[in-house]
Amino acid sequence: MIGIAVIGYGYWGPNLVRNIADIPDARLIYVCDLRKDRLAPVEARYPTVAVTDDIDEVLRDPRVDAVAIATPVSTHFKIAMKALMAGRHVFVEKPMAATSEEARRLVDEANRRGLKLAVDHTFVHTGAVRKMREIVEDGLGDMYYYDSVRVNLGLFQHDVSVVWDLAVHDLSIMDYVLREKPIAVSATGMSHVVGEPENIAYLNLFFESKLIAHVHVNWLAPVKVRRTLIGGSSKMIVYDDLEPSEKIKVYDKGITLNGGTGNGDVYQMLVGYRTGDMYAPQLDMTEALGRELRQFVSCIEHDSQPTTDGLAGLRVVRILEAATQSLAQRGRVVDLEPARMIA
Amino acid sequence: MIGIAVIGYGYWGPNLVRNIADIPDARLIYVCDLRKDRLAPVEARYPTVAVTDDIDEVLRDPRVDAVAIATPVSTHFKIAMKALMAGRHVFVEKPMAATSEEARRLVDEANRRGLKLAVDHTFVHTGAVRKMREIVEDGLGDMYYYDSVRVNLGLFQHDVSVVWDLAVHDLSIMDYVLREKPIAVSATGMSHVVGEPENIAYLNLFFESKLIAHVHVNWLAPVKVRRTLIGGSSKMIVYDDLEPSEKIKVYDKGITLNGGTGNGDVYQMLVGYRTGDMYAPQLDMTEALGRELRQFVSCIEHDSQPTTDGLAGLRVVRILEAATQSLAQRGRVVDLEPARMIA
Amino acid sequence: MIGIAVIGYGYWGPNLVRNIADIPDARLIYVCDLRKDRLAPVEARYPTVAVTDDIDEVLRDPRVDAVAIATPVSTHFKIAMKALMAGRHVFVEKPMAATSEEARRLVDEANRRGLKLAVDHTFVHTGAVRKMREIVEDGLGDMYYYDSVRVNLGLFQHDVSVVWDLAVHDLSIMDYVLREKPIAVSATGMSHVVGEPENIAYLNLFFESKLIAHVHVNWLAPVKVRRTLIGGSSKMIVYDDLEPSEKIKVYDKGITLNGGTGNGDVYQMLVGYRTGDMYAPQLDMTEALGRELRQFVSCIEHDSQPTTDGLAGLRVVRILEAATQSLAQRGRVVDLEPARMIA
Amino acid sequence: MIGIAVIGYGYWGPNLVRNIADIPDARLIYVCDLRKDRLAPVEARYPTVAVTDDIDEVLRDPRVDAVAIATPVSTHFKIAMKALMAGRHVFVEKPMAATSEEARRLVDEANRRGLKLAVDHTFVHTGAVRKMREIVEDGLGDMYYYDSVRVNLGLFQHDVSVVWDLAVHDLSIMDYVLREKPIAVSATGMSHVVGEPENIAYLNLFFESKLIAHVHVNWLAPVKVRRTLIGGSSKMIVYDDLEPSEKIKVYDKGITLNGGTGNGDVYQMLVGYRTGDMYAPQLDMTEALGRELRQFVSCIEHDSQPTTDGLAGLRVVRILEAATQSLAQRGRVVDLEPARMIA
Repeated sequence: MIGIAVIGYGYWGPNLVRNIADIPDARLIYVCDLRKDRLAPVEARYPTVAVTDDIDEVLRDPRVDAVAIATPVSTHFKIAMKALMAGRHVFVEKPMAATSEEARRLVDEANRRGLKLAVDHTFVHTGAVRKMREIVEDGLGDMYYYDSVRVNLGLFQHDVSVVWDLAVHDLSIMDYVLREKPIAVSATGMSHVVGEPENIAYLNLFFESKLIAHVHVNWLAPVKVRRTLIGGSSKMIVYDDLEPSEKIKVYDKGITLNGGTGNGDVYQMLVGYRTGDMYAPQLDMTEALGRELRQFVSCIEHDSQPTTDGLAGLRVVRILEAATQSLAQRGRVVDLEPARMIA
Repeated sequence: MIGIAVIGYGYWGPNLVRNIADIPDARLIYVCDLRKDRLAPVEARYPTVAVTDDIDEVLRDPRVDAVAIATPVSTHFKIAMKALMAGRHVFVEKPMAATSEEARRLVDEANRRGLKLAVDHTFVHTGAVRKMREIVEDGLGDMYYYDSVRVNLGLFQHDVSVVWDLAVHDLSIMDYVLREKPIAVSATGMSHVVGEPENIAYLNLFFESKLIAHVHVNWLAPVKVRRTLIGGSSKMIVYDDLEPSEKIKVYDKGITLNGGTGNGDVYQMLVGYRTGDMYAPQLDMTEALGRELRQFVSCIEHDSQPTTDGLAGLRVVRILEAATQSLAQRGRVVDLEPARMIA
Repeated sequence: MIGIAVIGYGYWGPNLVRNIADIPDARLIYVCDLRKDRLAPVEARYPTVAVTDDIDEVLRDPRVDAVAIATPVSTHFKIAMKALMAGRHVFVEKPMAATSEEARRLVDEANRRGLKLAVDHTFVHTGAVRKMREIVEDGLGDMYYYDSVRVNLGLFQHDVSVVWDLAVHDLSIMDYVLREKPIAVSATGMSHVVGEPENIAYLNLFFESKLIAHVHVNWLAPVKVRRTLIGGSSKMIVYDDLEPSEKIKVYDKGITLNGGTGNGDVYQMLVGYRTGDMYAPQLDMTEALGRELRQFVSCIEHDSQPTTDGLAGLRVVRILEAATQSLAQRGRVVDLEPARMIA
Repeated sequence: MIGIAVIGYGYWGPNLVRNIADIPDARLIYVCDLRKDRLAPVEARYPTVAVTDDIDEVLRDPRVDAVAIATPVSTHFKIAMKALMAGRHVFVEKPMAATSEEARRLVDEANRRGLKLAVDHTFVHTGAVRKMREIVEDGLGDMYYYDSVRVNLGLFQHDVSVVWDLAVHDLSIMDYVLREKPIAVSATGMSHVVGEPENIAYLNLFFESKLIAHVHVNWLAPVKVRRTLIGGSSKMIVYDDLEPSEKIKVYDKGITLNGGTGNGDVYQMLVGYRTGDMYAPQLDMTEALGRELRQFVSCIEHDSQPTTDGLAGLRVVRILEAATQSLAQRGRVVDLEPARMIA
């Protein structure tokens, strides 16, 4: 039985609490929030769970094996580091930290102490994204592009740009689904409200191969779109998260290249098209967050590695950071340190 | 009665011929193509129209007042210039020329001789795009963004990149719909076939205001998408060209900004959301090409200016050219010469 | 403060409990279910609410002003009648009763005692359906048809046919939205499982005017559809409940009839088409069940009439009953008693 | 080389002419229409084809082997019979005749003379419908239902009801795709314009098995829908003709029935649900009419039987006729003569 404390009971905390309460192998011990008024509903609904506004109280309690952190991004590092240093396993909301330096220090600390560090890249644990990885691993031929649109009329965040709020999802999915890691990033965007971070942004990711990735995020769109296209030479995928059941469609489409003819001084390939059936595989519709938290608990019990571990969190933060640098320079390409260093 | 010759009878030429044949005030005199075998169906279906592979024969004939050019882009300049120098009005396929230098020389030559020069920016003449301009002119509040996706599994072109083939449509629509002209462009993309031009590309357009524009074009997508979002502070538009009738949807949505509160050292706006009705205006479904050609004929008769004149063609080619430069440099921002110079 | 007891804590009961618990003017006193094992979560989450398997205990308690019944249809009459006879107001799940005779006796009993009797026709209380009624009241011209498709791969019910399970929604919406009441009904359908009630059915409703209504319900469809078309001579409505926000679309479309010409011996109308804009009004997205329960409480407090009162429940049950008779006779038309008798 | 004359050059005739002109083994000899003014464009575009308003001239010409008839329905019988009696093969528009008596006499006459009689059930020759038949023949398990919606804001016809105009398509598709033939039909509908035939109708078809079919047709719908659901116990099909490419979707969904338990006096099956992948097979996109006419020509040359022969035409007319009888009696069930008699 793993004892868990939830730190932060704002927007996402209640989801952690509800899911942890349902895990047979876990016991929810505390819910902690600086704003005590938020904790009243916890007391009413979970009478056996302690509430507090004092994180030190939580970390002093020996029944607490792990903490799940759902506080603002700017506080992730401080709280997670404190918990690690107190010998607790950590599950932290995305993005893992506000800078890659912070993220790296968390990874190092967890490693040093042999503690589990997991980041809540929720989408990675959905049936749709796991199926997508399976299909990509089975092979799409040469990888051509990864293109995602994630737009809606959404809550403006005052502390982070739309890149840290929305693109983080795409980057974490990409990190899981693609075998290759990006080597450089560029981003353009705009803030339409004085004094606020960007509310619209376009990211380009460059790879060593001919793969190209692009992410379009926007908080001010009149319609909601959640659509990713993945193109390969032999198959292509459309992932539409708003489809109620057929979220993943696999197209047996692509191009064929023939030797071509050298006409004059230019050697030209003959490009042909191949189109076949489409299929939409059945997906596991289990709630992703529950699955992810059960995995975290199981990793503690059996000393295994979470799918979305600290390194995954670090790789994503590294790209967010580079994208932010690029945004400030109208899309200058920012190189990422070699992926092998952080994978 | 305006006498017209069509030059080039490949993919698009038959559409010009069919539409010109239906204009009461025009008379189709010649169809000219270097490949004489292409002309047999013209002879069969339009027995009164002369066919030839000799453009000089066409330009010697005093009955010919104007030419409509539908040849490969690389030949537009040479043929259009020859026609202008022979005193003929010119209607030329998009993009108007292969370089902005060529485009400018055509504009200058037409001006000098008082001849009409029109470029076939077909979409500008559709009911959907004309309605969209009307709505933008009525006001969307502050203009935030223009975002277009134009992807499909399409014919690879060997001579031009996907930017010149597909993005040209978006650039011509933007040129017509937006009051402001871009001041810089950046573009990233990739060719997935050795020796071929880019088959996927992303363009960013920068403006003096906070408006930002983005165009995503792709010849290798498993699904066809033709969707443009235009965001303003008070209204937003979705233009989906694949919708059979409701191509334009106008959303009474936006954000409201209140004075905000200075909390600490950061002055923050309070961002509120406003959502109201959506409406889809009825659209004129007349074939755009016919409307455009009738306007060209009418401009010759009444000495008025075509909507998509040589300057519009030049502005679009200038952006295509800059985007191509940027593509070669992983998205370096390329400044466009001041819009007022070419508008 | 109105004291309420919820009777039945199976599929729908938890929704009643959750919503009643949120009404400021109401106090949830009891939750009652014959299966005591179902009541454990109530005790855990609502420690101040009493639980029991004895309805008589509930009705003896003077703090209970009203009961909300969410038991199987076959028991509605008995429980509701018992509650009315004990002087309690009644809110009962749809369909109100298993026969029109039962429904009528409930209406009479409530009237005699001056008690409120409301039936949970939830859809009537959604923003979409209320807006639809507004639009119909503003006028669609002559009413032509009401056509609804409500199909999915759904839970087979062993005790009632798909008509009583799904068509009841359409009949209650129609009862609210249309000014005219049907005078006859016919229905065809099929059971594809031996010993089970019909799992697919088609209902026709006839009116005194030229209005015609049709309802298609199916538990065995591969896709989910929830779409209603309402056609009038001057406007038409599409109501798609699966659309996330634009559930109601109003089309300014219709036909125009001109005097016509008597050619030969047949006098023919000239039928013209008129098409204009479409608009999708913004909808109140408040949870319908909460709104409905608040109205029920307010009706008790202020002695006003619920929108979906016992007569509405009776009218719907009367049609369900007639449809069932028709189903058994391959679609024989069954007349409904004059609407004025029960409205 | 088969010589063909087209009789009737109104709405559909031009399509016949265009397609016949493209068949290598056929030669278009005449186009005949009572209104000579309609024939001018034929003369202009097909200078080698003779035009006439005299059908007898056509039938006297020994070069004419077959006629393709695209005149109003009421004239099909007279013209087709005249052609058969003159020894010509006949291809006739749907519906084949105005009554089943007429249709039967045409079938008998063609049989007696050993001539080909084909009816233009165009949809049967599309890639989508042919694929659908393949899938049904491979097996959907027990057949449960066939349900089609075919509605739009369409051209009112003054001579025939919406059943003869639109439902004829569904009946011809069903005749081809389903192995079983209906044994009875009922129909309800309404005319909303005085003196005009029904503009909205609902058909039920009954079979000896538990299969049930339903067709909904409407000329006054604000949106266009062309959707058919076919349900079987092991697979289900959605055929949406408005989808640009994925017109056919096959769902690996259904119910499973287990022995069940006899609880009390009712023996109940346990109904379980099974859901698996969906796939959309690639379809042959060849123009159906061209394929159908080539088949007709080939049948004449090789004395084989057209897919949509006179008997198919008769079966469809028989149902249309019975539906019309039922419509006049508010949906009374009309038995069809045993299918074996006419198949």
